[in-house]
Amino acid sequence: MSQSPNDAYAAAGVDLDVAAQVKEGIRSAVESTRTSLVQAGFGSFGGAFSIPPGYREPVLVSSVDGVGTKLHLAIEWGRPEAAGRDLVNHCIDDVAVLNARPLAFLDYVASGELEPAIVVALVEGMAAACRSAGVALIGGETALMPDTYRAGAYDLAGTMIGIAERSAMPDPARVQRGDVIVGVPSVGLHTNGYSLARRTAATLGPDYRVGEGTLADALLAPHPSYLAELEAAFSVEGMRVAAHITGGGLEENVPRVLPSHLGARFDVRGWVAPPVFDVIADQQGLDAPAMYRVFNMGIGLAIVVAPESADELLDALPGAFVAGGITERADPRVVLAGL
Amino acid sequence: MSQSPNDAYAAAGVDLDVAAQVKEGIRSAVESTRTSLVQAGFGSFGGAFSIPPGYREPVLVSSVDGVGTKLHLAIEWGRPEAAGRDLVNHCIDDVAVLNARPLAFLDYVASGELEPAIVVALVEGMAAACRSAGVALIGGETALMPDTYRAGAYDLAGTMIGIAERSAMPDPARVQRGDVIVGVPSVGLHTNGYSLARRTAATLGPDYRVGEGTLADALLAPHPSYLAELEAAFSVEGMRVAAHITGGGLEENVPRVLPSHLGARFDVRGWVAPPVFDVIADQQGLDAPAMYRVFNMGIGLAIVVAPESADELLDALPGAFVAGGITERADPRVVLAGL
Repeated sequence: MSQSPNDAYAAAGVDLDVAAQVKEGIRSAVESTRTSLVQAGFGSFGGAFSIPPGYREPVLVSSVDGVGTKLHLAIEWGRPEAAGRDLVNHCIDDVAVLNARPLAFLDYVASGELEPAIVVALVEGMAAACRSAGVALIGGETALMPDTYRAGAYDLAGTMIGIAERSAMPDPARVQRGDVIVGVPSVGLHTNGYSLARRTAATLGPDYRVGEGTLADALLAPHPSYLAELEAAFSVEGMRVAAHITGGGLEENVPRVLPSHLGARFDVRGWVAPPVFDVIADQQGLDAPAMYRVFNMGIGLAIVVAPESADELLDALPGAFVAGGITERADPRVVLAGL
Repeated sequence: MSQSPNDAYAAAGVDLDVAAQVKEGIRSAVESTRTSLVQAGFGSFGGAFSIPPGYREPVLVSSVDGVGTKLHLAIEWGRPEAAGRDLVNHCIDDVAVLNARPLAFLDYVASGELEPAIVVALVEGMAAACRSAGVALIGGETALMPDTYRAGAYDLAGTMIGIAERSAMPDPARVQRGDVIVGVPSVGLHTNGYSLARRTAATLGPDYRVGEGTLADALLAPHPSYLAELEAAFSVEGMRVAAHITGGGLEENVPRVLPSHLGARFDVRGWVAPPVFDVIADQQGLDAPAMYRVFNMGIGLAIVVAPESADELLDALPGAFVAGGITERADPRVVLAGL
């Protein structure tokens, strides 16, 4: 693990104390995520971990992501650890939709000024989400780049490595016309659409009431880990594929798991999006089609299942609902009825 | 592969063309790196690849890094693809010192304005370095964050995933007093010390003569991949451990591969650092001890070998030289004689 602030510290001379504070602060968080698979300790050049036994044809599944501008809000509103959790959970979901078990995570934190308390909180948030999912935080890089980042700004990115049994991975070729699409509810924006969200936040402030909480609660609600839901779904016979609904909403993300000749039809009257989306639409003057092109609008996962297995899947996923179905491909490929 | 500019595009409305240009521009670069191990195509949520056969106890070795502020110079001086190569090669070396074969890479590119030509050049540089090493570029994220990045600034980070045979991984416990340290030459700064380098560059300009080339050539010389050298070294009986000399120089990086009771002694009169280091030292008014604390000063890899195997190792690595030896631990732990 080489979570070592880069040599810009040494160049600056005065900041070696900051580097030491960061390093010491994150050490226990990182070590708290250690699993039995981890082979190398804090400080080695690469993070090393064993492939768990029992896989006939192991396939590594990995995904890289950032949390985008949600990080600004998290820091501005005093909850940087939330952004760390968001990043890890986003990455968990990206590998878990391929029926992979997440194993190891590596992070990248960069800023123009590196406040130790913020860096440590980010890493602690990542470590907490890693522990919840049995993931080891095996590597990280912290970079200080004053000419790159605006004053007070940070960026945070990470890579998840997971493992899947090849024969158990979802195959878009199995999706058929007439399959059912089950929606798993989102809790809010997750990590997408924060350019618009921040404009709303700037106007209304963190304490504006949204539903039963505040705008801060709604906008900083953690990106959920859907690992348990996806494990349950993949144990259902007739489960086909799952799409993680991130930036670009249903229209961009659902086609990523469909064969080229098929499309999807949703009836948006079948679920209610969290109230924060209404607040953003009102404030930004966006109509429903525009909102659906950016946000998840209440669906965190779209799971495609054979019709005869839909009830079993719904029983396995409390809160999930029938959101649509698979159709022949048309234009647009994803139809949103009832908008 | 989700190399999709994030939804800030959609929010901004007018920039969807930029997103499409970036996506199309990087597609062929990414696809050129495809290896037989790759399982999923461009567009899926996670990059998937098979574990190569033939390992008894496979261990995954991964490393995350950025190229730091070298990226500024590479863009300013019109060679962004060089920064892409640097990043991949840096990460190759970090996993290869653990005797791992690099397999797959994921990148993160972020900026406040995303010029398609620059993003595509960065990805093409990464893809070229990946192809040279047989590495598949299996994932990426491109983020547009105007409030995070300064005008014209980019950041670039990446994660390498490699695989090692557990019994063939170097073990610091095997290092003994009296072992020889062989240096493999660096070509210049590699990716570290660019805060100081950029100050020098700002004063002297890209065309200033350094040795037989220009300052631009010297400062943008690519971080070498030492994969072939490390494979050759690990085939030598008596090879112990290897340290990749990055930020912090010999003093910070060599101890990372030593057992706690040992130290190292170098005699810096045994090699000549590339002339760019003299230029930086002169311009920045830094003495030799200060330079050695920041830069690699001419050694890209420090390889520890049993004394009876030193000649065999030197024969296997043209250009390499005896740089020092392993001692009992003292204070300082790394002694630089002849400074």
